[in-house]
Amino acid sequence: MYIDQAFQLVKMTAGQTGRNPAVGCIIVKDGAIIGFGAHLKEGTAHAEVQAIRMAGDARGATLYCTLEPCNHTGKTPPCTEAIIQAGVKKVVFAERDRSLDDTGVRYMESHGIAVVHEPSDEVSDFYQAFFISKEEKRPFVTLKLASTLDGKLADDHNSSRWLTHDKSRRDVHALRHTYDAVLVGRATYDIDQPKLDARHVSDKVPAKVIITKTGQLKIHGQDQETDQRIIVLSPTPVEYAETILTDDFRPARLLELLHQAGIGRLMIEGGSAVISEFIEQDCFDEIVIYYAPKLLGGTLNNRFYHTVESRMINLRLTDVRRFDDDLRLTYRKGQTDVHRTY
Amino acid sequence: MYIDQAFQLVKMTAGQTGRNPAVGCIIVKDGAIIGFGAHLKEGTAHAEVQAIRMAGDARGATLYCTLEPCNHTGKTPPCTEAIIQAGVKKVVFAERDRSLDDTGVRYMESHGIAVVHEPSDEVSDFYQAFFISKEEKRPFVTLKLASTLDGKLADDHNSSRWLTHDKSRRDVHALRHTYDAVLVGRATYDIDQPKLDARHVSDKVPAKVIITKTGQLKIHGQDQETDQRIIVLSPTPVEYAETILTDDFRPARLLELLHQAGIGRLMIEGGSAVISEFIEQDCFDEIVIYYAPKLLGGTLNNRFYHTVESRMINLRLTDVRRFDDDLRLTYRKGQTDVHRTY
Repeated sequence: MYIDQAFQLVKMTAGQTGRNPAVGCIIVKDGAIIGFGAHLKEGTAHAEVQAIRMAGDARGATLYCTLEPCNHTGKTPPCTEAIIQAGVKKVVFAERDRSLDDTGVRYMESHGIAVVHEPSDEVSDFYQAFFISKEEKRPFVTLKLASTLDGKLADDHNSSRWLTHDKSRRDVHALRHTYDAVLVGRATYDIDQPKLDARHVSDKVPAKVIITKTGQLKIHGQDQETDQRIIVLSPTPVEYAETILTDDFRPARLLELLHQAGIGRLMIEGGSAVISEFIEQDCFDEIVIYYAPKLLGGTLNNRFYHTVESRMINLRLTDVRRFDDDLRLTYRKGQTDVHRTY
Repeated sequence: MYIDQAFQLVKMTAGQTGRNPAVGCIIVKDGAIIGFGAHLKEGTAHAEVQAIRMAGDARGATLYCTLEPCNHTGKTPPCTEAIIQAGVKKVVFAERDRSLDDTGVRYMESHGIAVVHEPSDEVSDFYQAFFISKEEKRPFVTLKLASTLDGKLADDHNSSRWLTHDKSRRDVHALRHTYDAVLVGRATYDIDQPKLDARHVSDKVPAKVIITKTGQLKIHGQDQETDQRIIVLSPTPVEYAETILTDDFRPARLLELLHQAGIGRLMIEGGSAVISEFIEQDCFDEIVIYYAPKLLGGTLNNRFYHTVESRMINLRLTDVRRFDDDLRLTYRKGQTDVHRTY
């Protein structure tokens, strides 16, 4: 139960910790919570340290943490040290941090602390994004689409908007809340003038990332006067934006640059040219499709995935949610081992 | 409960009654079933008559029927008459037959029979297909697709087969079981050489309907020696098939011709040209999409819905089923009244 509660803190803070993982921590003594903490922002105190501070006196307490406490000095001192100093008697963590060596557990145990690994599928699933990002030095990438059943993001003339309805759109905001940045292509930026925020569920404003291969981009008025971080990937500097200069627009290179700019979780929202390129170049981890109960037909224009040559890409269905007549489907890469003999 | 049981008989016999509705009937006396019946084939005895025959003596019994008993002489005498003659004391039916006048209930009541209308959503949903078919003098039309997430039925070179896996394909057979006929275009017939039967769940062999606008069609060897009814819609006679001659290939006309040929429930399985034409001409009632967890990309070729010009078609999501990583989504025409204010 305490791990679940700690994971609530993770959900609240996901998308604001950049390349660091969101972590939740709860300290319990004599059946009462005496401290909780979460890692709030890259470079600031870890969840364990926050929770110990709140507890004041954590001697003899049990510390529950969603991720294995770190044992190394980075921007902050090792959490294992803080836990030992605080006199905690037991540590329960949900996910082993495979990006660390395994000295932390032994170090705490050598100081008489009982350490318990209590795995949780939900927590584990969440941290895969962090591990991928850290190991591959790129953001975890979710492609998010709102599509008709025949794979159109909009009609041939870009005149259809809001394929999905309120409940789905609210859900998009909840999803965005957990990302550091949202990326769109130049055409989508100009046609849709998207806010790309999470205003229907929170004040969270993920960074807005715009790709312009020509550098011909004018930041819209609303984005000139915003607190939102506006990042542009461009061959030449763009006014009113943090320009990351590049002449190499291969998706893998763009992801590398965004990671260097502190982006740990990236959502890509369109248009079809950007989405198609990231899919074709295998530069994504997850695809979230909102299917509106509609058909559009027409040409290849605004078909969310079109390439010169068809090639099969296999995915796994990891989640299905229904919002009235809309559906949200989540897929990850890779094939499930199913029997195909027909 | 007895209505549910009677509906089991409907599910067993759906797809073998042509333009007539499948109907199930159960007669109960002193807490025991003393007769059951189903309409088996167009032109033969109705469910009520079958059940009364089995009961032998139905005096004082209650008759449960999925559809309101008929009160007219068609290919068989009126069921109301048979019910009165048998001495049944109570009739319970689930769906009012809106294709009949309402004299039947009053006629039975005037003979001292208690008549109860006990509606059931599931039963009602089933009979909509029959009412549509009867009123519009065309088959009820289900478009069935197995598609990638980006709307491809096959890759650009028609070299991919079996997008979905075993469980989905078994479900397709269960679905086909309830149709009188399955229609494909000439190209799909030649490329896939489809059996279009229900062999994984039953011996049911729906009629196979092939469209050829040129008449250039050679019936494959396996179909020359089959008991399956092979219907060809063609401008010129085609050997080894029941040819329905036509120079008019508009979907509405084809449906009219198939209704005249005794088809009440029609499933259309492809390819994309046929599906696109029936969607665009608004000649369908239901779309069943099996989404495989795959992306194909490529050109417009084999995109299940493509037209010269995009135009929004609104549907309602009526059913979602998951088979491992495959999904089966069922849509009907028309828009649900949802709030769209964003």
